[in-house]
Amino acid sequence: MTKGAGETAGAVDRLYRLVEADLSHVNALILERMRSDVPLIPELAGHLVNSGGKRVRPMLTLAAAQLCGYQGLAHIRLATAVEFIHTATLLHDDVVDESELRRGKAAAHVIWGNAPSVLVGDFLFSRSFQLMVETGSLRVLGILSNASAVIAEGEVMQLNTQGNIGVAEETYLKIIAAKTAALFAAAAESGAVIAQTDGLREAALKSYGHNLGIAFQLVDDALDYSGREAMMGKAVGDDFRDGKLTLPVIIALGHANTDEVEFWRRTMAQRQQTDADLTHAIHLIEKHHAIAATVSKARSFTDEACRALNVFPDSPMRRALTDLAEFCISRAY
Amino acid sequence: MTKGAGETAGAVDRLYRLVEADLSHVNALILERMRSDVPLIPELAGHLVNSGGKRVRPMLTLAAAQLCGYQGLAHIRLATAVEFIHTATLLHDDVVDESELRRGKAAAHVIWGNAPSVLVGDFLFSRSFQLMVETGSLRVLGILSNASAVIAEGEVMQLNTQGNIGVAEETYLKIIAAKTAALFAAAAESGAVIAQTDGLREAALKSYGHNLGIAFQLVDDALDYSGREAMMGKAVGDDFRDGKLTLPVIIALGHANTDEVEFWRRTMAQRQQTDADLTHAIHLIEKHHAIAATVSKARSFTDEACRALNVFPDSPMRRALTDLAEFCISRAY
Repeated sequence: MTKGAGETAGAVDRLYRLVEADLSHVNALILERMRSDVPLIPELAGHLVNSGGKRVRPMLTLAAAQLCGYQGLAHIRLATAVEFIHTATLLHDDVVDESELRRGKAAAHVIWGNAPSVLVGDFLFSRSFQLMVETGSLRVLGILSNASAVIAEGEVMQLNTQGNIGVAEETYLKIIAAKTAALFAAAAESGAVIAQTDGLREAALKSYGHNLGIAFQLVDDALDYSGREAMMGKAVGDDFRDGKLTLPVIIALGHANTDEVEFWRRTMAQRQQTDADLTHAIHLIEKHHAIAATVSKARSFTDEACRALNVFPDSPMRRALTDLAEFCISRAY
Repeated sequence: MTKGAGETAGAVDRLYRLVEADLSHVNALILERMRSDVPLIPELAGHLVNSGGKRVRPMLTLAAAQLCGYQGLAHIRLATAVEFIHTATLLHDDVVDESELRRGKAAAHVIWGNAPSVLVGDFLFSRSFQLMVETGSLRVLGILSNASAVIAEGEVMQLNTQGNIGVAEETYLKIIAAKTAALFAAAAESGAVIAQTDGLREAALKSYGHNLGIAFQLVDDALDYSGREAMMGKAVGDDFRDGKLTLPVIIALGHANTDEVEFWRRTMAQRQQTDADLTHAIHLIEKHHAIAATVSKARSFTDEACRALNVFPDSPMRRALTDLAEFCISRAY
């Protein structure tokens, strides 16, 4: 069942209302902990932090803690730590990818250069661990330090496959599980852990986060060939220009004739691209229904995410998390 | 009293022999935790890890734990974590500074590019926190996450003063306290904390590490204008070329006539350098005895470092740490 745009926005509003009070504390703590005697740090970090990110990951942490009946305050620090890890990886990713745009604004490294982007990323990463220490939970520190290592591995894996038109769907799924889903999974799982729930519920929320994260990245990768720049907040065709083999291209390559394989080899492997090539790439992806297939794959992951929540009794929060999964898919339309 | 080179090497040998067994476990753990299913990660990390670093920081952790009578095994993980933080910052620094050489070998980013250097740095940083979690000590996690944030702040401060020929000695000392001494202090303090000693001894080892770290950086900065490339393992004149205002230049500027100020302005602020300029910079630094003054300053910090150890009774380890401070100064000759 695909919901209309209005209904979907309403669905995310429901989750937002349930975590709104907590999220305002998180936003205040983000601003507080970005502070430094070195003015460039809050200036650069603020550029990204205030650029209208959706705070999906910290919302997951807050929602997971609430779903497990948490009554304390440590989830605020934890959710802030999660957002800082995300922000740090964005700063480093933009340096790595040489992206010009991030959330519709010039990327930080374009304005301030690579060096401060790397260092402010390191600063936020450190701040994130300081916040986790304040929660007093070694388990949370374990979950998020593991996730951080996996994210870095995923990013390096992605670098290694750049321009490799022989990359298998399985490898691609492994990369996005590491670079994106690991933090979604850790955000949700650590919310359950801080609430001191049982292992079954921890595992359920970890699975929800993992599957939602995969779906989220699949839809992102589909939008890179189908979205509008204004909606994306980043340039359409970034992955194409970077030679990143994402599922839409892997699917199109699976159905490609000789000429088409040659096109992908020239543009992605040899990175020889003319202005018209992105249009042709989109044409080939549409010809082979690769966007629809990618979104359909994403839906199988959101279905799995929602199934994982079955260990929880019906509640407004559980329904809101199911709706978030639905929203994730609806972004593709 | 300045020791001869042979005697000094003997002094460090004494410390080395006292921590040798522990250090071999640290080296084994470094190799084990560098591992990843992504081959580029151990390859790139190994390039730096196996390049003959002196392991000063993990030795400090091991020595501090021993000095406090520690009998457990967690100091091995802790010392490995300290070395990983150091390695991560080196990888990022080389990207930030665009250095060509590190420990006498091509810097990692020259061989593999900036992107993997940033990401493998992130990986090692995450691994470091995983190791700390395994020690089970939240206090250690607090000390080293604080130090990591301070290091990043110091690096950004340094970026901000690059090319500023008006920078004060006080600002310079603040920068090196953050970018270098913070990790020395944390390495020594956390060794005491893991040994569960009293607050007086923790503070003493923190002070020892802090003052040793300042002295270490002062001597490094002196060597950048006086050392031989083979001895340094990095290019002489790097700071000059980067427009980094270090103490030798700050002192020379303090005694500069109008022509000399103009020289420093052109070469450091406007970064207009000819081949002969480094030679002239070294000449001006020698003319104003700025190397001797820098080393003399370093000695006042090692004196303070050794004084801090007075809370400990005389022992082979305390003497070895005093000798390490002596060695730090002797590197300048």
